[in-house]
Amino acid sequence: MRTVNGWAAKAPGAALEPWRFERRDLRPTDVALRVTHAGVCFTDLDHVRPEPGQEQPDIFPLVPGHEMVGEVVAVGSEVTRFRVGDPVCVGNIVDSCGVCEACRGGDQQFCAEFPTLTYGGRDRHDGSLTQGGFADEYVADQAFVYRRPEGLDPAGTAPLMCAGITTWVPLRRWEVGPGRTVGVVGLGGLGHIAVKLAKALGAEVVGFTTSPGKAEGMRELGADDVVVSTDADAMDKQRGRFDFILDTVPRTHDLSPYLTALRFDRTLCTLGMVSGMPFDPMSLMYGRKRLAAAGSGGIADTQDMIDFCGTHGVTATVEVLPVAEVNTALDRLVAGDVTYRFVLDLGGSAGTAERRAASAT
Amino acid sequence: MRTVNGWAAKAPGAALEPWRFERRDLRPTDVALRVTHAGVCFTDLDHVRPEPGQEQPDIFPLVPGHEMVGEVVAVGSEVTRFRVGDPVCVGNIVDSCGVCEACRGGDQQFCAEFPTLTYGGRDRHDGSLTQGGFADEYVADQAFVYRRPEGLDPAGTAPLMCAGITTWVPLRRWEVGPGRTVGVVGLGGLGHIAVKLAKALGAEVVGFTTSPGKAEGMRELGADDVVVSTDADAMDKQRGRFDFILDTVPRTHDLSPYLTALRFDRTLCTLGMVSGMPFDPMSLMYGRKRLAAAGSGGIADTQDMIDFCGTHGVTATVEVLPVAEVNTALDRLVAGDVTYRFVLDLGGSAGTAERRAASAT
Repeated sequence: MRTVNGWAAKAPGAALEPWRFERRDLRPTDVALRVTHAGVCFTDLDHVRPEPGQEQPDIFPLVPGHEMVGEVVAVGSEVTRFRVGDPVCVGNIVDSCGVCEACRGGDQQFCAEFPTLTYGGRDRHDGSLTQGGFADEYVADQAFVYRRPEGLDPAGTAPLMCAGITTWVPLRRWEVGPGRTVGVVGLGGLGHIAVKLAKALGAEVVGFTTSPGKAEGMRELGADDVVVSTDADAMDKQRGRFDFILDTVPRTHDLSPYLTALRFDRTLCTLGMVSGMPFDPMSLMYGRKRLAAAGSGGIADTQDMIDFCGTHGVTATVEVLPVAEVNTALDRLVAGDVTYRFVLDLGGSAGTAERRAASAT
Repeated sequence: MRTVNGWAAKAPGAALEPWRFERRDLRPTDVALRVTHAGVCFTDLDHVRPEPGQEQPDIFPLVPGHEMVGEVVAVGSEVTRFRVGDPVCVGNIVDSCGVCEACRGGDQQFCAEFPTLTYGGRDRHDGSLTQGGFADEYVADQAFVYRRPEGLDPAGTAPLMCAGITTWVPLRRWEVGPGRTVGVVGLGGLGHIAVKLAKALGAEVVGFTTSPGKAEGMRELGADDVVVSTDADAMDKQRGRFDFILDTVPRTHDLSPYLTALRFDRTLCTLGMVSGMPFDPMSLMYGRKRLAAAGSGGIADTQDMIDFCGTHGVTATVEVLPVAEVNTALDRLVAGDVTYRFVLDLGGSAGTAERRAASAT
């Protein structure tokens, strides 16, 4: 087994604290990576500080983190795609059944047997609990490890592994590109990457925000236009404007105004995985609109997204904190005191990881 | 002008009463039809007995009725598609702009300028208020008049013009046919025709109802299986079963269980035009489902549907009442005392219509 230093919550609601734990010895197709950076996602918060009734005590102690950037420190005997020293990254799923309709179609995130989550999931082979990327090392099958362009800032690359792929898949699926007008609702971790990706894809990008104060930030990210969604007159003028709208707001809100803002026969996709989302069916019916939802992405799409970001120089806008300040990052996330995305720097543990690498085989 | 005998509400909430009114003289492309049967739709109820706050006093006196069957009694000078005596029918829209994206694509019901409704609408040429089919005669442009197979029962044909086309369009759009399993939620005017059409299209048809007592009726209409949607165990077994689900229930209800019942990458279409419809975005996201809504249909689709019904002998299951009992029909509709659809028999006014025909030109 491989001894790893991570940051874990010992119980639901507990602060994260240093925790030494073990990862599996490398299987033939496994890769071990030294984690240098890990993004902090709202999903991490949901797991370690769950809402009442949402606690999952059986997955604790829990090391969160599913937006990892690092480099390969060891490879299993049958690994062909990576060598020690390769720059890589890992996202929020690390295994799937591989044979269901979704997996065969490249949508491993929708595996009929549910994909193995990067943390808080059960390994498909030995049933052990997976532990996430707020740790100096991670072990995953090479199929779920991605090549990373060295030219991209590593810290800004980490959030691509969840926020990036989650917005990339719908932007590609609904063919956002030159000649298309796309709306991005909300300007948080997901929304700000969506604006950058849609712009890099060549679309006209319009941001929707409830905060007039965020308009300038949206323009700096590349938005061609910004609409304050609480301004009824401004919203009314959006009627029939958009080829596609990506709604990233993780709060229950009426989707009808955005359905109305779509052109004839177009799609609104929500990423806001909340307990319920209302809409007026008339706003969906009239103009033959569609409502869809998305989250995460499959293997091929993830590598495509990273490669695209490498070519176009797209990274998340992040604030980097040392991993020892992980609880501060979570506190500030709760308070909304974050500009787009926190990324934890685990670089101080490089020496430790090298020691691991030496003892890996 | 053409004097017509109809049944009108003189004000919102008022009972319908006999009313003599005038329709326009035939324009070159107009057709006049003697109405023999008219279906009674919930939309009629919504117009003449509106919910508080939904009243439209400026459209009264109002003659409802938009599911008309009859025969041609007069044609304008440039009418090429019809002759006096032809069996015809008219549905819920009678004009549109003809040049917008929707109209050009054959979806006149989604006309960007809003289609002209059969009653309570404004004529695009003279601005007059349209009056509906609870009358012995109707006048419409030939483009919105449909050929009707004489072999089909006229009373059972009337509801095809709204309930039929509204269910036909989504069934066709989402390719319901042999080898596909389709769910129909609700067994009212819309649902019962959806079951018949889906069965005639060759699909495996499963009905969902909250009323165990309706199961036998659903099977008699052709459903291969019936699920009582209040039975949680039975619903859980539907997970991932359906290629398409058509939800016809006109009440706010959670769409999530039906999204969950879809197979991977499939669509749920709602016809329930109520003020708000909730769903759990997770049930939409996981399995890459889509949510859509539909209502009414365009010219070509409407004629296709009628022709298909002629070929396959599909008509609505109806209870026929003389037009003088229209208020009874509305009362019973409110009380839920209807087996699928009421149709009003206006046949007694045939003599009147013939007199009209004689004075038409």
